[in-house]
Amino acid sequence: MNVTIHGQTRHFRTVAFDTKRNAVLLIEQRLLPHEFKIVAMRDYRETAAAIRDMIVRGAGAIGATAAYGLAQGVRAFRGDDLKKFSTHLKNVYEVLKDARPTAVDPVNAMNDVCATMRKGTTVEEKKSLALAAAEEFANEDALHCEEIGRHGAKLIRDGMKVLTHCNAGWLAFVDIGSATAPMYAAQAAGKKFHVFCDETRPRSQGATLTAWELAQQRVPHQIIADNAAGHLMQRGEIDLVIVGSDRVLGRTGEVTNKIGTYTKAVLAARHRIPFYAAIPLSTIDWNLKRGFDIPIEERSESEVLGAWGTLKSGKREYVRVANPSSGARNPGFDVTPPELITGIITPMGIFKPKDLWKRRKNLGYAGS
Amino acid sequence: MNVTIHGQTRHFRTVAFDTKRNAVLLIEQRLLPHEFKIVAMRDYRETAAAIRDMIVRGAGAIGATAAYGLAQGVRAFRGDDLKKFSTHLKNVYEVLKDARPTAVDPVNAMNDVCATMRKGTTVEEKKSLALAAAEEFANEDALHCEEIGRHGAKLIRDGMKVLTHCNAGWLAFVDIGSATAPMYAAQAAGKKFHVFCDETRPRSQGATLTAWELAQQRVPHQIIADNAAGHLMQRGEIDLVIVGSDRVLGRTGEVTNKIGTYTKAVLAARHRIPFYAAIPLSTIDWNLKRGFDIPIEERSESEVLGAWGTLKSGKREYVRVANPSSGARNPGFDVTPPELITGIITPMGIFKPKDLWKRRKNLGYAGS
Repeated sequence: MNVTIHGQTRHFRTVAFDTKRNAVLLIEQRLLPHEFKIVAMRDYRETAAAIRDMIVRGAGAIGATAAYGLAQGVRAFRGDDLKKFSTHLKNVYEVLKDARPTAVDPVNAMNDVCATMRKGTTVEEKKSLALAAAEEFANEDALHCEEIGRHGAKLIRDGMKVLTHCNAGWLAFVDIGSATAPMYAAQAAGKKFHVFCDETRPRSQGATLTAWELAQQRVPHQIIADNAAGHLMQRGEIDLVIVGSDRVLGRTGEVTNKIGTYTKAVLAARHRIPFYAAIPLSTIDWNLKRGFDIPIEERSESEVLGAWGTLKSGKREYVRVANPSSGARNPGFDVTPPELITGIITPMGIFKPKDLWKRRKNLGYAGS
Repeated sequence: MNVTIHGQTRHFRTVAFDTKRNAVLLIEQRLLPHEFKIVAMRDYRETAAAIRDMIVRGAGAIGATAAYGLAQGVRAFRGDDLKKFSTHLKNVYEVLKDARPTAVDPVNAMNDVCATMRKGTTVEEKKSLALAAAEEFANEDALHCEEIGRHGAKLIRDGMKVLTHCNAGWLAFVDIGSATAPMYAAQAAGKKFHVFCDETRPRSQGATLTAWELAQQRVPHQIIADNAAGHLMQRGEIDLVIVGSDRVLGRTGEVTNKIGTYTKAVLAARHRIPFYAAIPLSTIDWNLKRGFDIPIEERSESEVLGAWGTLKSGKREYVRVANPSSGARNPGFDVTPPELITGIITPMGIFKPKDLWKRRKNLGYAGS
């Protein structure tokens, strides 16, 4: 997507590769929205550290980063001994996998790259196949988001007010994003609309990342407290809700996403406001049988008890907001049942949540 | 309620009066939860400034502060000229009224005091009647909260998890509070229960004031992000919701309260969790015909775009959390329709919202 720096607008992907320097290029997301910086990871260990330390986050983005990281790692191999190369490859794979041990996207992405590499017979061939496969993975991620945008843009009409929660944007993918894709496509089609970004406490990804993205793309928007959406819906000020998802259950149509998503879906249903989740196919989990079995990560209390922000001096600091002697509960995400979801926007079209299983053969289900 | 300082526990009212020094004593609420301090307002103008600058806030608390401020003002009058006294009284009244021009409680409280003063025939009599009336107003405020507690405590059973939103506690009244009253009464009756405090963005009164109060009273509690209640309800972790209210419409049963209350009521209804608003009778508005006509205050964007908190150094600072180039919407409260409210807990008992009008003669309705 586009970023304007010192009055100049340029296109950037969240994740890219510099073949000359054998470097993975990342937007340093921890500095956003206060500073925009591209950082170069010169070595696969640095790339793994970037995933671990959340310089890059979001399903598609960490998948592409791991794919590039794998190519970067094998390209650094010296010599033509296939056995030594294979040992080196395994090591690179493990280091990148361990960066976010519970995330499924880096593993899937690296398995893609490894499968392509098997077609090569020499070290040199394998190296160039690895890079080509990583590039293809990244391009496909962007392409899938573009397709999500093409299907989802039809839902946005002139004058609409659209609510989104958390960040399922360009920054979570290689480009364009999932929940934001319909907005960017509608904007490209010349439609005029307004976006409300939920702040998304406790980590405030809506107020920081999504608001920053929308500002860069010049999409008119306002941030609201997570408490405000119900009131705005009641007063007729929200026409459509689009969110992303961390995991959609292909068998049930349940949508796992950032904490607070379920609340917005309940409110939308009460007010008969269409509620959509936008996802690439890789987000569909075809195995799990019910959402209740999804373990809900309990995150650090400090996220709820305070906030990170910028002082007048420009310094980034954490402030403790809450009563010092009180503790917190901090579930990281929630599960929205299918009856509250109008549709799932995928690169293959928009489906009712309950229809995913019926259409599984077209939606990447690998089973029988 | 009780506050523990340096290991010593003492009882404090939010608002009190020192007859010797002719001073209004207030808990400096802007310093909470980080510092507990009682400040003495030596003059009615100082007392008005304390209301204006929100050293004291909350319906009952500012009512009692204005009542005491009026007594304080007239007690400072020198001489026995009734006409001059009357002019002075009018001036004191106006200064205190102007401190929070849209609030109804200071005006009602001062009218009470003025009505009692009319029974006096000399300046000295009027002075002592004013103080007696202010004391009575404050005592009644505390007594009403005690009655709310007595009725509401029946709703809390051993092992329950109770959710509250914002601060309708002791700090918003002279003592005990409205939404917190049933909790304190249940605790006094030896019941064991757990309270979840909604953070209550954007001003975080739940994380700061309610959590501080509950900690002082040793009520087990945890702060949650406003986004988390839906998930906790879905997992069966919330059994009861009690909130306060800024205005309950006596004709319709609609409940106006801090932004986000409506959302919690919608969620509670979906999960068949009882949802109560606890109020003194002075909160009932018998005139307004529909909640849609209540003007919803649009507050400063900066509240949504950042947070006040404490740095490691102990210094209080505002941090900007949100993207610097984005703006915000910030509606201050919302209106919950009666069908989502299980009951209104009042000092006279618990009523279904729709029954307030039928029972208006017992509930302080002054009309015919």
